[in-house]
Amino acid sequence: MSETQASTIKTIEWTEAGVRMIDQTLLPAHEVYRTYTDYQGVAEAIRSMVIRGAPAIGVAAAMGVALGVKNSNAASADALRADFELIARTISATRPTAVNLFWAVERTRRVFESALAEAASEEQAIAAAKERLVKEAQRMLAEDIAVNEAMGRAGAALLPDRGVVLTHCNAGALATGGYGTALGVIRAAVDAGKKIEVFADETRPFLQGARLTAWELSRDGIPVTIITDSMAGHFMKEGRIRAAIVGADRIAANGDVANKIGTYTVAVLARENGIPFYVAAPLSTIDLKLASGDEIPIEQRSAREVTHVAGVAIAPEAVRAQHPAFDVTPHRYVTAIITERGVAREPYTESLAALFGSKVNSRQSTVHSQG
Amino acid sequence: MSETQASTIKTIEWTEAGVRMIDQTLLPAHEVYRTYTDYQGVAEAIRSMVIRGAPAIGVAAAMGVALGVKNSNAASADALRADFELIARTISATRPTAVNLFWAVERTRRVFESALAEAASEEQAIAAAKERLVKEAQRMLAEDIAVNEAMGRAGAALLPDRGVVLTHCNAGALATGGYGTALGVIRAAVDAGKKIEVFADETRPFLQGARLTAWELSRDGIPVTIITDSMAGHFMKEGRIRAAIVGADRIAANGDVANKIGTYTVAVLARENGIPFYVAAPLSTIDLKLASGDEIPIEQRSAREVTHVAGVAIAPEAVRAQHPAFDVTPHRYVTAIITERGVAREPYTESLAALFGSKVNSRQSTVHSQG
Repeated sequence: MSETQASTIKTIEWTEAGVRMIDQTLLPAHEVYRTYTDYQGVAEAIRSMVIRGAPAIGVAAAMGVALGVKNSNAASADALRADFELIARTISATRPTAVNLFWAVERTRRVFESALAEAASEEQAIAAAKERLVKEAQRMLAEDIAVNEAMGRAGAALLPDRGVVLTHCNAGALATGGYGTALGVIRAAVDAGKKIEVFADETRPFLQGARLTAWELSRDGIPVTIITDSMAGHFMKEGRIRAAIVGADRIAANGDVANKIGTYTVAVLARENGIPFYVAAPLSTIDLKLASGDEIPIEQRSAREVTHVAGVAIAPEAVRAQHPAFDVTPHRYVTAIITERGVAREPYTESLAALFGSKVNSRQSTVHSQG
Repeated sequence: MSETQASTIKTIEWTEAGVRMIDQTLLPAHEVYRTYTDYQGVAEAIRSMVIRGAPAIGVAAAMGVALGVKNSNAASADALRADFELIARTISATRPTAVNLFWAVERTRRVFESALAEAASEEQAIAAAKERLVKEAQRMLAEDIAVNEAMGRAGAALLPDRGVVLTHCNAGALATGGYGTALGVIRAAVDAGKKIEVFADETRPFLQGARLTAWELSRDGIPVTIITDSMAGHFMKEGRIRAAIVGADRIAANGDVANKIGTYTVAVLARENGIPFYVAAPLSTIDLKLASGDEIPIEQRSAREVTHVAGVAIAPEAVRAQHPAFDVTPHRYVTAIITERGVAREPYTESLAALFGSKVNSRQSTVHSQG
């Protein structure tokens, strides 16, 4: 049921008219789809969080690059390369924390250069680069869904057979190409017959939990209860929560996890109360170039997103507010990291590196090849 | 400066026309004062959080009882006593967690019975009971301010000379007769020359931090920055926060502290990061009848206060939400409890009991007698 339902949420797709996304700033009140016809529009959609969630941002970045190159009027390979670099810079400048953005742009760059190199003539090179970038972006969307389903299979056994699982922010279909990372693991556990109820932190300031996680789990018929971020500790102490699971925006080589602001708090409270704290993320979120989370850049967003809710001021005018959009959870609080290639545990420096060396299993490969 | 400024915020006062309060549900957008002319109105004001904060609720309860008895048409002492009991029951049923409510009602009962017992005639008894209850309620307001100032003197030395102090909810002038408990300690520290900046947790769902703490500290010229509840842990981990201080709604004999939902989370994060966590509360908030916080009733408020902000829905319709209004912080997380009679530390069962046996110091006695 969940897969069918989840597939009805089209977070992002490539269409003849352009890149189409559901506007996540308007959910759940309005279900509006927007089609972007140039890469600048896609960049602005990422920046303004029409689309958000590390894997979804990665797919959007690839589609933005493909759209920009497709629209280019460059008449030579060099001119097209210059356009590519401008597009890549613009897309890369939208949000600093989620590494999937940079991972996706690099992947399109490799495809772009290989298309240029292989073509017989300059004209063919330009056509090939445009065509292969569009195909690659579509493949990345399909792969992302398959990766999430593999993550679900890898992680479902970790969740309790029954009871409340806490999640923070939205790491669901809306944060990905589909199915979700943390919510994908929950979906897989429910599909496997587990009687799971989700407590969703509302996730101030952007309210991804109250707006998006509640919306997509309700559509799937998975029981969900909204709590404020400040209530998670109380319910853990009362013994109501059996496990916590979140997504990630970037994971360093040592297992430190950058994720939505408030994640660190959930992790500390979980450990204090003897509750497992899981992170579900694809390998594309793991940044082995960074030794620790100290090196992960934390995006600072507008104070207005804190002082206003749904356009209404909730604070006195001219009062300062801070808005770090992410925090870093040190790896010692992380019980396990669930990826499409299996589950990593301490010591993460070794277990994460090992995952990159391993091969996907045959079932995943099959799913991949369908992309 | 702060005392002068704070006195300009009239949280509650007795007037000839009735009990006058600033409507805290409308702050900071609108500064509206409401005058209640019957006890039912005062009870509804407490229930709907026009007035909130344990000490302020205590004063409101006493004024509500005084108003109800003053308005009574009872022609005999027995009839007046029956009215008193109805009024006391109505006021006591408004909110279950803050013990100051019950403490205040009990205090008015003693005054009421003593007035009845001492009078020569039934007519005189009725007049004396009405007059003494009004005076007692006014005295409790003045005492509360004096108690908060004494708490400020007792606690100011605990705060750092400079840097950021975190607070949760509003434990300020608006939560009390004036000056505040936790914010009173901050005011006293600032008056003593300390360069303190306050980080105010916005305190979902009712937003007492963003709406009330930011408003009253701004009026006092004390630097204040609003953060979401989910950011406190991040700033502690980053080394930005030097101390945390909160008020309390009820403290058990062993030092367990019931306070606004989210307080437990602040306390756990503070200990995890080696930051002192202080509670400032008058003796009237300490309930020696309860051995531990497990016995403190936790008020469950409407889910709508979670799913709606400023009247706007932030969640899908029909999605469940939980709304425990308070949580209990086990005493092991509490660095010290600051009262008007001095600072208590572990073991609280002994140190809190000792405070009840001790006398107020001469300066406080002087202030008390002015009430």
